[in-house]
Amino acid sequence: MYLQNGLTSSSFTTTSQNCGIMSGVVLYKKVAIAQIDSKVGDFEGNAAKIIDFSTLAEKKGAEIVVFPEFSLCGYPPEDLLFYTKFITDSKNIQNTLLCELKKHVPNLHVFFGNIAEQKNDNRIIQNALFEALNGEIVRKYTKRDLPNYGVFDEQRYFTADSSQDFRLENSANVAVAICEDIWNGIPLDVQKSDEVIIVINASPFSVLKFNQRVQTTKNLANEYNLPVVYANLVGAQDELVFDGGSFILDENAEVVSICPKFIEKLALEHDITEHTDELLDIYSACVSGLRAYAFNNGFHAAVLGLSGGIDSALVATMAVDAIADVVGIAMPSVYSSSSSLADAASLANNLGIKYIEQPLGDIFNAYTSLDSNFTSNIALENIQARIRGNFLMSYANSNSGCLVLATGNKSELAVGYSTVYGDAIGGFAPIKDVYKTKVWELAKRRNELSFRDLKKLGFKGSVNPIPTNSITKPPSAELKPGQLDSDTLPDYTELDAKLEQHIENYAQVDEHIMKMVKNAEWKRRQYPIGPKITTRSFGKDFRMPITQSTCR
Amino acid sequence: MYLQNGLTSSSFTTTSQNCGIMSGVVLYKKVAIAQIDSKVGDFEGNAAKIIDFSTLAEKKGAEIVVFPEFSLCGYPPEDLLFYTKFITDSKNIQNTLLCELKKHVPNLHVFFGNIAEQKNDNRIIQNALFEALNGEIVRKYTKRDLPNYGVFDEQRYFTADSSQDFRLENSANVAVAICEDIWNGIPLDVQKSDEVIIVINASPFSVLKFNQRVQTTKNLANEYNLPVVYANLVGAQDELVFDGGSFILDENAEVVSICPKFIEKLALEHDITEHTDELLDIYSACVSGLRAYAFNNGFHAAVLGLSGGIDSALVATMAVDAIADVVGIAMPSVYSSSSSLADAASLANNLGIKYIEQPLGDIFNAYTSLDSNFTSNIALENIQARIRGNFLMSYANSNSGCLVLATGNKSELAVGYSTVYGDAIGGFAPIKDVYKTKVWELAKRRNELSFRDLKKLGFKGSVNPIPTNSITKPPSAELKPGQLDSDTLPDYTELDAKLEQHIENYAQVDEHIMKMVKNAEWKRRQYPIGPKITTRSFGKDFRMPITQSTCR
Repeated sequence: MYLQNGLTSSSFTTTSQNCGIMSGVVLYKKVAIAQIDSKVGDFEGNAAKIIDFSTLAEKKGAEIVVFPEFSLCGYPPEDLLFYTKFITDSKNIQNTLLCELKKHVPNLHVFFGNIAEQKNDNRIIQNALFEALNGEIVRKYTKRDLPNYGVFDEQRYFTADSSQDFRLENSANVAVAICEDIWNGIPLDVQKSDEVIIVINASPFSVLKFNQRVQTTKNLANEYNLPVVYANLVGAQDELVFDGGSFILDENAEVVSICPKFIEKLALEHDITEHTDELLDIYSACVSGLRAYAFNNGFHAAVLGLSGGIDSALVATMAVDAIADVVGIAMPSVYSSSSSLADAASLANNLGIKYIEQPLGDIFNAYTSLDSNFTSNIALENIQARIRGNFLMSYANSNSGCLVLATGNKSELAVGYSTVYGDAIGGFAPIKDVYKTKVWELAKRRNELSFRDLKKLGFKGSVNPIPTNSITKPPSAELKPGQLDSDTLPDYTELDAKLEQHIENYAQVDEHIMKMVKNAEWKRRQYPIGPKITTRSFGKDFRMPITQSTCR
Repeated sequence: MYLQNGLTSSSFTTTSQNCGIMSGVVLYKKVAIAQIDSKVGDFEGNAAKIIDFSTLAEKKGAEIVVFPEFSLCGYPPEDLLFYTKFITDSKNIQNTLLCELKKHVPNLHVFFGNIAEQKNDNRIIQNALFEALNGEIVRKYTKRDLPNYGVFDEQRYFTADSSQDFRLENSANVAVAICEDIWNGIPLDVQKSDEVIIVINASPFSVLKFNQRVQTTKNLANEYNLPVVYANLVGAQDELVFDGGSFILDENAEVVSICPKFIEKLALEHDITEHTDELLDIYSACVSGLRAYAFNNGFHAAVLGLSGGIDSALVATMAVDAIADVVGIAMPSVYSSSSSLADAASLANNLGIKYIEQPLGDIFNAYTSLDSNFTSNIALENIQARIRGNFLMSYANSNSGCLVLATGNKSELAVGYSTVYGDAIGGFAPIKDVYKTKVWELAKRRNELSFRDLKKLGFKGSVNPIPTNSITKPPSAELKPGQLDSDTLPDYTELDAKLEQHIENYAQVDEHIMKMVKNAEWKRRQYPIGPKITTRSFGKDFRMPITQSTCR
């Protein structure tokens, strides 16, 4: 792409015929976005990736390449930042990176993110952007606005102090900012000669967030009448999914390039990625979060219980799309219907995964014959779920490298409709931030994807995997005869609307719903982590006390 | 106490003969500290307590009474602060409180803490101190320094902006500060006529914290040559224990009064509480945290597994001291030694608690006969712990109001030496922040307490309850024949020293220890909460990523 001072840059191209002189002004350099997946603490890996993408960018004709926020150390490192060695390592790898960049791409302006020490004191640190050129740092810019809300704790770690920022003469004619800096109207340092604004980001996914980023960045382009390059991180780290979707606006605030979401990409060419709908984005975010968690923690396979219901069907499908090697275990009790078992088997068959049937049988009977201290109705309902949990953990203990998945959805977690140490076990919970009504929608949307769609999205599963019956039948925990969710809970359409109001919009709703949410907090604290999908997920976003004399 | 301008105030007395004129100066009013246990969101209860203690303080001759930080709304309310109704309720109850104080104690200066709205916008809030007199607020002071480290997230919620603070002419001649305000050398607003500095606090317990508070406050007294009244919260909220220990320094920075720790107290009289040692403070903090969690969440009893080992013996004793009604369940497997069972029974007998023996028996056998997908050695070790977890949950499900206690210690949690969904289950974990070596010390210290000690401390248990054998025998999980902790772990003295270095001092230690700590993070996330004891506990203090390509 050519970013032209005062002129529309409508193309993002590797050809050079538009580069040159216009109105007596030297037009600006070609900018490439390197939308990479940096991993927290993987300094060598991240540096290697920066070198590779930089080399490729130059080969493709770029003069500037832009990496995301904290691309060298990964985001968010959280309390690792309190360890001196982490800071020292980040500094050392940066020196190595500079040498390598000098060797391979001496003339390329490489913008990347890393930790900076303020006053050479490794206890006072900053979230910084560096511009490397010919083995030197020609610009250091530190984040001005440190987000400390939602999932962010940046004021716990970083200092905002621009007194040691600098910009040398041979730096590129661009202005810069880091993520939050552009969201609250803080004035940027823009010099007269600057021809573009570069913003590096580690902006986590949530529903509609992409649109907000574009709108915020449009406001910026309009304010300064400059093109804006918005480079976002991609991949996932624990509960945060970084959806990428980096983009470029021209100085009229028109989108001239959008990177695809959820994959690494060197964006050099004019490229407006196909629009993806909200449901597909949510589904992809769950898959991304799961894939990153599994691979970055050394799991090559996943195991989960298949009940024949919609939640486990959707999670199994996500798992196949993310990691391929999946084991589904159906664990019928005396209350499981034969149609549930058939739906579970049919799903496994559709997905082509290993399928095991392991009835609770004797073990459940042994529990029922304990004395009355252990055998109330509610104890015997829960024990079924807990035996299943034990089976799954025993499977994982007996088959190394196998990650146990929890299949709970946000509606269940909100009201506590789950058995702690039963269906609530696992290392990762792919749909914990997806409301039940949305679970059905995602299942339908996934079933619509063509073979071509799957290939493009990098999903490893099959077409139309989820049995219709799992989508259409009324939900049930099947822990007692004829049990239905609707015996205990309001209709999910109504419930989800109220939960969203209460959780995401901080509103008051029916007292009994708020009370269920409050009373389930202790269980949620012990639930596996899972990807943030909504504006307020049950994770770093949701810091509610367990003990509280209120229903708010 | 009489706080005399420029004169040593050596007594904290209700008699009035020292009140009057000295060197032509009217000496200052009598100050009482109301060290109360406020509960998060219990507006009515907290207000009633403030009225009662104020009435009593006046009856005893006080002219000023000082309540802790956030005494009206409780501390910390966390994300409840994002709910408009919580803010509105805190404002409404304050109006009610003012009316009641006017009715009962019109002439008393009442200093308390509550939420303040900045510019009448309930989204911009502050952590405030109010001075009430005759039904009016005569002073509003908002916290200047918002802690955002360790367990604190105050910059997530509050704004520091003193522009709307005020102090009317009829306010008391005292300067004020809130907690963190005095820790970092920020200058206080002290007027020439001020005769004392009042600091309201919600300062959580950790080892040696009391000494730090006194030292910090001494520095303040010396800097301003004024007496200082340090009023601290008491009680506990989730993982934070507020140990009280409020105190008064004279203008020579000498301690002239110390409130007892861990109990509510109206301190009017000259009263230097007996010194308590570090071990006793730690033990009391665990008991306080457990008691508050149980009672404030509606539990009247606790249940836990008794293995005969030191961890469960200590937790059982704490539980009896905190809530009296405790059930101990011994759940022997084929690998449990008969001496372990004898130690468990002996402990239960010493404590006078309900004791149940429920062998794993048939249930464990049923698991062993499953196919090889579920029966690796490690699976069969863990399943024993998981069956025990199931028993405990079934007991709680069958006996309502019964809280399940986890008995894991900090050393185990650090290295992951526990079975997730097995011994790691429960609603509260009293010793999760106590290293194993300290567990032994606490057990010995508890065994030393006399009947008189127990009574004074408000503990409900018996004298010398923990069997010597539980203290002296080598620790073992007893999940396979002849198993000892020392087969897998270094000697605990060595291990604990290294863990403390790594966790609390952010130091590098042996690679294999750091790796164990890192790999256990996913399990710690699912562990029950428990009281913070050390400077960095596994809770809000410890925000380490699960996924990280590093051993730090």
